[in-house]
Amino acid sequence: MTTQSFLAPISTRLAARASQLKGSVIDSSTSLLASQTHDIVRFAMGAPNAELIPEAELAELYRQPAEGRYDYAATEGNPQLIEQIVAFAAGQGQAVDPERILVTTGGMQGLDIAFKLMVDPGDLVIVESPTYTNGIATALSYQGQILEAPVDDDGLIVEALPELVAASGKIPKVIYVIPNFQNPSGRTLSEARRRKLIELAEQWEAFIIDDDPYGALRFAGQEVPGFSELSPNNPRIVSVRTFSKVLAPGLRVGWMELDPALRALAISAKQSMDTCTNAPLQQLVADYLAQGRLESHLQTLRGVYAERKQAMVRALRHSFGDQVETTDPEGGFFLWLTLKGRYAQINTEELFPVALEYGVAYIPGPAFADSGAFTDALRLCFATSTPARIEQGVQRLHDALEAMLQRGAGA
Amino acid sequence: MTTQSFLAPISTRLAARASQLKGSVIDSSTSLLASQTHDIVRFAMGAPNAELIPEAELAELYRQPAEGRYDYAATEGNPQLIEQIVAFAAGQGQAVDPERILVTTGGMQGLDIAFKLMVDPGDLVIVESPTYTNGIATALSYQGQILEAPVDDDGLIVEALPELVAASGKIPKVIYVIPNFQNPSGRTLSEARRRKLIELAEQWEAFIIDDDPYGALRFAGQEVPGFSELSPNNPRIVSVRTFSKVLAPGLRVGWMELDPALRALAISAKQSMDTCTNAPLQQLVADYLAQGRLESHLQTLRGVYAERKQAMVRALRHSFGDQVETTDPEGGFFLWLTLKGRYAQINTEELFPVALEYGVAYIPGPAFADSGAFTDALRLCFATSTPARIEQGVQRLHDALEAMLQRGAGA
Repeated sequence: MTTQSFLAPISTRLAARASQLKGSVIDSSTSLLASQTHDIVRFAMGAPNAELIPEAELAELYRQPAEGRYDYAATEGNPQLIEQIVAFAAGQGQAVDPERILVTTGGMQGLDIAFKLMVDPGDLVIVESPTYTNGIATALSYQGQILEAPVDDDGLIVEALPELVAASGKIPKVIYVIPNFQNPSGRTLSEARRRKLIELAEQWEAFIIDDDPYGALRFAGQEVPGFSELSPNNPRIVSVRTFSKVLAPGLRVGWMELDPALRALAISAKQSMDTCTNAPLQQLVADYLAQGRLESHLQTLRGVYAERKQAMVRALRHSFGDQVETTDPEGGFFLWLTLKGRYAQINTEELFPVALEYGVAYIPGPAFADSGAFTDALRLCFATSTPARIEQGVQRLHDALEAMLQRGAGA
Repeated sequence: MTTQSFLAPISTRLAARASQLKGSVIDSSTSLLASQTHDIVRFAMGAPNAELIPEAELAELYRQPAEGRYDYAATEGNPQLIEQIVAFAAGQGQAVDPERILVTTGGMQGLDIAFKLMVDPGDLVIVESPTYTNGIATALSYQGQILEAPVDDDGLIVEALPELVAASGKIPKVIYVIPNFQNPSGRTLSEARRRKLIELAEQWEAFIIDDDPYGALRFAGQEVPGFSELSPNNPRIVSVRTFSKVLAPGLRVGWMELDPALRALAISAKQSMDTCTNAPLQQLVADYLAQGRLESHLQTLRGVYAERKQAMVRALRHSFGDQVETTDPEGGFFLWLTLKGRYAQINTEELFPVALEYGVAYIPGPAFADSGAFTDALRLCFATSTPARIEQGVQRLHDALEAMLQRGAGA
């Protein structure tokens, strides 16, 4: 670590958890990509592109006067926003009591609050492998012990958990799961496995953190009932939601749905984290929802993302044939690519700078597992780019892989 | 706790720190006050009133196009905002390297990050008594052990610390201090004590968390050199700053100044807390600062707050004579009132609902100490109300106190 010299006089006085802090490859790529000056097709960040954010409508709403726009908001959230979240959930067939809603600073803060309330040092946290980097990082920041569990096309292999847990010698405290169009794999947890997971959580007296940023972005296949539909008002289930993927990530407005007594603790926790979520953008989201604009926006997004996913799958098949294997998501932002055949030995972390050079960015597989597995895999976000740009990006990825092979051959 | 019934099946599975979470009386008062329908003079929250927030200018700036306004920001902060923060600091005579700046979600997140990096369970944290509630709450959320140290008119009595520390049987890990126009007392730490505190921190290998939301709001007296001026680039000093008090609290935009190596850890921590601070309002603050508007806005605020503080001191003297004792701050938002004479036995927590009934709100003294001390004191914010409203509010406070005496006499 190049910074050691600065830290030397103070490093021994840091909290033990400081040594467990894990920087996010995903987040850091925002800064890295911002510093590049050549043309890059961006398959890296999971963010909608500017043209899919209703900027003009939001700007227009921001022009309306709003009383107390810049004042502190209540820690639990702007009451109008909470009302709109309840209405939005109702529109999706879920009856939610406003006393179960807590507005958060993006979905990320929902995870931070949940792990803060649940995880003591050494507590066992089951995660999908691969999973969302920052989810693991948050669990680690509270010194949780990560148990990586395998996934297949039906998501987390819940049937494998009892044996894995027995081998760990601990009873799990938390099961962290992304049920729909999982990040990074794009896979969806089947209903049978959701039911089984709820049973296991009951048996272990464990919490389920149900992190679902993409659920409203299904563009194919059948809806799978959510955890709170399968087990309403279950105090062990904490749902983490966000407007980042359906409206805009920069807003940092999300919400949690959780047991009212747990919510009271979550409010206390949030008061010592950021006091409240920023007030002007809570109001903006509330106004946008109040005008009933989100549903038609979602319709647009689903159509666009369906087209982009198809374009990416088609381009990958065209460029790579059977030299790669990919998932085929029914919604969300991501697909997961595993290198096969002549590419099977290429390390996707080593490939990354070459790909950047060739003008395409992605997130290498090892970013999605604390164990550093998945060196032969990578995550591609199909949501950000047009079909034409996707074709171009896949071609560049192909060229970068070929270049790696050549360099390997020349070494 | 009325919520026990809900929590029963899960309470034993919460993290140990959950039992240490302390709700903020200050933040909760936002919700409580919002639910009142009668006229209340608001001396409670430390927030500028709407007429002192440049809403029209901010709305105008929001109308300008901004590329990537709604996208994720870099975790370390919008580069234009960092540049403007450096320029703002330079304007105040402080040379700051941009590599030492981290944008945060308000000053509160700066405290959360600092305590997260520094405090293990049981670590000793020295705080002023009274001090900012949420500061204590954050230290407690990482299971720190609070050592309350007394203050006088020159702020924290630094000379008393060695003996207090010796009696605690521990070496302090953190000294949490609000050096200018302290919350809640309005007092300022003298230069001699700042120097002594830096020496003690060195001796104990402790960090100083220098929380200074009000420093730019001096309206009387002489500037006192800041910690980073007295000991530049000292890795033990972490400065927490915010735009909440000088621009608007609802923005949730603040910053930390800290050692670059510690900043690298802070960035990792922030990635697992909220990914990044909201992007549109970072841009808005950057644009506002780039137009050089903050300095003249600060001039306005200083004039207004000077007048309001004088109005409050005058009204208190007029209504109460020597039956209360108050501090006389040279800047900031707050003064601290201690009940004397015939009011000396009144408990300010019990007074609170009566005061609300009479149409005036404040924060009771015990909110500012983990020990629950200061039942005879309260915090008044003079920044929110006009002089005429301040007079009205002080009169109502007087009437409420008299009513308490009467009720006491009748019991």
